[in-house]
Amino acid sequence: MDAVEAKPGPLHGLTMALKDNIDLAGVPTTAGDPRNDRPAEKNAFVVDRLIEAGAVASGKTNLDQYATGLVGTRSPYGACHSVFSDEHISGGSSSGSAVAVATGEVDFALGTDTAGSGRVPAAFNGLVGIKPSRGLVSTSGVVPACRSLDCVTVMARSVSVARQAFDVMVAFDPDDPYSRRLSSLPRARSGSGAVVIGVPDRPLDLDPLYEKPWQQAVEQAQKLGTVVPVDIGPLLEAADLLYSGPWLAERWLAFGDKLDDVGEVDPTVRAIVRKGAALTASDAFAGFDRLAALARASEPLWTEVDALLLPVTETHPTLTEVAADPIGVNSRLGRFTNMVNLLDLCAVAFPGPARDDGLPFGVQLIAPAGHDEAVIELAAVWCGEPSRALPEPAAVVQLAVAG
Amino acid sequence: MDAVEAKPGPLHGLTMALKDNIDLAGVPTTAGDPRNDRPAEKNAFVVDRLIEAGAVASGKTNLDQYATGLVGTRSPYGACHSVFSDEHISGGSSSGSAVAVATGEVDFALGTDTAGSGRVPAAFNGLVGIKPSRGLVSTSGVVPACRSLDCVTVMARSVSVARQAFDVMVAFDPDDPYSRRLSSLPRARSGSGAVVIGVPDRPLDLDPLYEKPWQQAVEQAQKLGTVVPVDIGPLLEAADLLYSGPWLAERWLAFGDKLDDVGEVDPTVRAIVRKGAALTASDAFAGFDRLAALARASEPLWTEVDALLLPVTETHPTLTEVAADPIGVNSRLGRFTNMVNLLDLCAVAFPGPARDDGLPFGVQLIAPAGHDEAVIELAAVWCGEPSRALPEPAAVVQLAVAG
Repeated sequence: MDAVEAKPGPLHGLTMALKDNIDLAGVPTTAGDPRNDRPAEKNAFVVDRLIEAGAVASGKTNLDQYATGLVGTRSPYGACHSVFSDEHISGGSSSGSAVAVATGEVDFALGTDTAGSGRVPAAFNGLVGIKPSRGLVSTSGVVPACRSLDCVTVMARSVSVARQAFDVMVAFDPDDPYSRRLSSLPRARSGSGAVVIGVPDRPLDLDPLYEKPWQQAVEQAQKLGTVVPVDIGPLLEAADLLYSGPWLAERWLAFGDKLDDVGEVDPTVRAIVRKGAALTASDAFAGFDRLAALARASEPLWTEVDALLLPVTETHPTLTEVAADPIGVNSRLGRFTNMVNLLDLCAVAFPGPARDDGLPFGVQLIAPAGHDEAVIELAAVWCGEPSRALPEPAAVVQLAVAG
Repeated sequence: MDAVEAKPGPLHGLTMALKDNIDLAGVPTTAGDPRNDRPAEKNAFVVDRLIEAGAVASGKTNLDQYATGLVGTRSPYGACHSVFSDEHISGGSSSGSAVAVATGEVDFALGTDTAGSGRVPAAFNGLVGIKPSRGLVSTSGVVPACRSLDCVTVMARSVSVARQAFDVMVAFDPDDPYSRRLSSLPRARSGSGAVVIGVPDRPLDLDPLYEKPWQQAVEQAQKLGTVVPVDIGPLLEAADLLYSGPWLAERWLAFGDKLDDVGEVDPTVRAIVRKGAALTASDAFAGFDRLAALARASEPLWTEVDALLLPVTETHPTLTEVAADPIGVNSRLGRFTNMVNLLDLCAVAFPGPARDDGLPFGVQLIAPAGHDEAVIELAAVWCGEPSRALPEPAAVVQLAVAG
């Protein structure tokens, strides 16, 4: 790409990579399908904001085709592997963005996250990944996967850099019907006192290599605040719903017309998304009813804790494992991430203690929509990075309805 | 029914009728289908609250079958007519509830309103009908039409009595996944100053008999506050969407298994709702995308006005007209009501100036969800009934997100 002069601004001097489902003016947005070769006419809303703030776009990055996958292998441009291991997957679908940041090629990168596509590759490459509340960051100029759920994410090697970019990315966009005017509130629970972090009240059935770092992560959480066991049953059920429910039809609506049986189309992506064509509108409403019930069942959790600590994934598969069972391995990767957008939550993924073999172990802090600042701040403190003094919870003026 | 002793409470001494899609313990809830003959095991959540507050249930009332219709003619138990005219329809689907109140048989009645079923029969029988914000009144124990949109309404001969019942009906119900913790806010716009009422900036193509009372209604609104012309284009498009979009599939999900071609099933209801079976989940998401765009397009309206004044319907059909074109006449009746639940608004219908032939003309005041008190108060002042001093708009403490 041509050299570009950075604008003055809070991000001056920082380089960024863009997942190739996000428009950069003059460059095709392939979404991992080489047939999409027409240059984008203008920047995505969020890219414009970042460039205006001084960031320089260094390039576009590989992804699981049409952002459908958590593995990073579903691309005609080739599979990515983790920067920590040639044998282990990079995670996806924001695979190239994670690798570009982890190798130091850029300071930060944009990804997207519908099921976990911004957090899983962050976890597998030792990065911080902020998954904003739905609607907090505009998706104008982003190729949709599930329009009602898609979020633009940012990955960096530190909370601080990710946060700097996040601050610029947050803006209401009247042209994005799913954009929302959310406040970013410092604390999930009303009232003050020590931070309360929830951890699952049950064993998580993790990869043996993750068991020790997970226990260490829980101990680390105890240094940040009070740790309480909570029931994550409704969250796990909601995670299952993303692919057993109607949302495959939303992908079918977005790019089903591109899924002909041709060489450019990833066969696994085609096999999965074509299932969306067979779903009825009645199935869709049944799924929403089920989701509404699970959302209600998960509500008490958020009166007990400020944030929920979870691993990002239960394991870190190898490229060989994915090749042997491309759908099954991928499904298991979404167990702790799939529900976050469905249940209108926000999250930040960041490196927990490493595995004994040196591979990274990613954890995430999750909170209700609007509490992005709270989980980012907790992650900063966790990582020993500069903290921002957040205001105490206080009365917030609002226009319409109370939460 | 057996005589029941009223409990002490704010509604002591008031009798109520219940639309027969709302459970009353010991009585079948037919929803207009005689095959549903099993007595309800317990009261609907809202019925329990009303009885606890002193109201006495006098009986169940006829309706358009499965609450699908705005006419009051789609029932194997017979068609209702307006109490003002043997020739004109009662409106529906809460037809019997309206007639029971208008004839003075009961003090108030419960209806339901998905497309306009609580407001249209109120309008055609000279009544007040409160259509609460979605989720403000529990629908536990109510036969669903479109679960995500259904609202329980109350009709009475005065704002005061409807409001008394409404006050009791409002409560969060943890067992209803669509129940919401909404604040009832006094004013839609932030800031203070005179009340601003919006009226359409275009001719409404009303029945000639409605033109004069509509002009008189606009003049009456000018006595209550500042009247400003507003663009209701996005609202009218959203109204069309209720039946051209995916929501028929929600009815199909709720009671499609009851729509066999048998004598008990209304043929018009069957013909309409069976269309819902053919819709795909992809159609559903396309409809939600369209609705999101229309919701966004309608937002500026609510920064300009505290409430929107509209007629409830554009005409008052006769039974003969409905018989000649049962679907077409019904569709036109929803033109000013269908969008209210889709766009997450609340409304109160009440009698405007009468037509020259003495038949009633119903108007409605509409506001964003959570502003129920505001439109009820405006209706009370309009009707010359006791006003409640509402607090000035102020900072509202909230738990999660800002509107």
